[in-house]
Amino acid sequence: MTAPIHDADVDDVLSGKVVGIVGGTGPQGRGLATRFAASGLKVLLGSRDAARAAEAAASIGPGVDGDSNDQVARRADIVLITVPWDGHRAQLAALADALHGKLVVDCVNPLGFDKQGPYRVEVDEGSAAEQAQSLLPDSTVVAAFHHLSATTLLDPDVASVDADVLVLADEREASDQVQALAGRIAGCRGIYAGRLRNAGQVEALTANLIAMNKLYKAHASVRITDV
Amino acid sequence: MTAPIHDADVDDVLSGKVVGIVGGTGPQGRGLATRFAASGLKVLLGSRDAARAAEAAASIGPGVDGDSNDQVARRADIVLITVPWDGHRAQLAALADALHGKLVVDCVNPLGFDKQGPYRVEVDEGSAAEQAQSLLPDSTVVAAFHHLSATTLLDPDVASVDADVLVLADEREASDQVQALAGRIAGCRGIYAGRLRNAGQVEALTANLIAMNKLYKAHASVRITDV
Repeated sequence: MTAPIHDADVDDVLSGKVVGIVGGTGPQGRGLATRFAASGLKVLLGSRDAARAAEAAASIGPGVDGDSNDQVARRADIVLITVPWDGHRAQLAALADALHGKLVVDCVNPLGFDKQGPYRVEVDEGSAAEQAQSLLPDSTVVAAFHHLSATTLLDPDVASVDADVLVLADEREASDQVQALAGRIAGCRGIYAGRLRNAGQVEALTANLIAMNKLYKAHASVRITDV
Repeated sequence: MTAPIHDADVDDVLSGKVVGIVGGTGPQGRGLATRFAASGLKVLLGSRDAARAAEAAASIGPGVDGDSNDQVARRADIVLITVPWDGHRAQLAALADALHGKLVVDCVNPLGFDKQGPYRVEVDEGSAAEQAQSLLPDSTVVAAFHHLSATTLLDPDVASVDADVLVLADEREASDQVQALAGRIAGCRGIYAGRLRNAGQVEALTANLIAMNKLYKAHASVRITDV
């Protein structure tokens, strides 16, 4: 079976949905917002500082608005988390009420860096996504969008992003929505890649991509073959 | 920079080398042996039972011989380890003397299985490869060949294997040899993917590929884009 690059029926699960991005003013958040907005989705960019979020949103263009992280979490249907790892736990704990009932997409890579480069940080819960689910018992947490290069997403000369998005989820319907969201990035395909308990290695694989980037002077990403 | 699919200069690092496969009578070992032999390499298949190894080697054809794991480790220059995870530690400890000075390629995925499918097993040393290096202080350990489907490798109708092999190594020269070895599998490309301390997530990613295989009825593998 070959998973479609873009499937209108699958995309229907996103109709009328608003996509929020908590910690969205960094390169990853702005890159994703740019691509989602280009596909016609309504995007809310979040920051601790609502004015800064509004400024970043305006710089991207139509379809993107800015607000505080808390307001973005409340106003959006699907909420991506793109905060730095060291602020992950505190940020999610602070938003637990605002994220009640929401589909939360954790995009965070728990990495450390030293003079030898990046490495996997051990997470008590197993992964950033499992930590999120433990902090947000009333939300549905999915993990995705770990391996896309922010530089590539933000590059207007890149019309098509050559990457698959691995989606980790314990519920099929949640995975379907996030796979459809990945499919909104031109060139990308969302692929179900297992349960949340297998998110840790997908998050940490970003350390390997960074090592490749350094050696090969690339913006490495992943494609899955035979799917 | 684009890494070559096949580069004669890089392949020269393999000239005159004998490739051994410890625990090589399983599907993964036989699959790799088949492809290496097809490229003209001399391959030694190892098993606890030398007669069984000889039988498996004969079934593959010219260029492949069988012997005991200990003899394979002593006779080969580059020794792949394709034993089941639960025998990994004991097997390597038993071969430490035979593997002295050798280039050891750990291909083992530390996975557990339950009714929800595969999952990452925590390894005290961080990964199977790091465990191997700690058990084999007089060998150079590299991690590679985790994501190739044995079914695909063994399928004579598959002329070209659509996959990249991620190579983890602390020494450049060792990585070069194993990347060249990966390049001997028609269609494959060996890519440096970081230091040994970042092997754990590459090994565990096999759990995600198994989850994809189940859903998509595929033999999923990985390609790296922009490299």
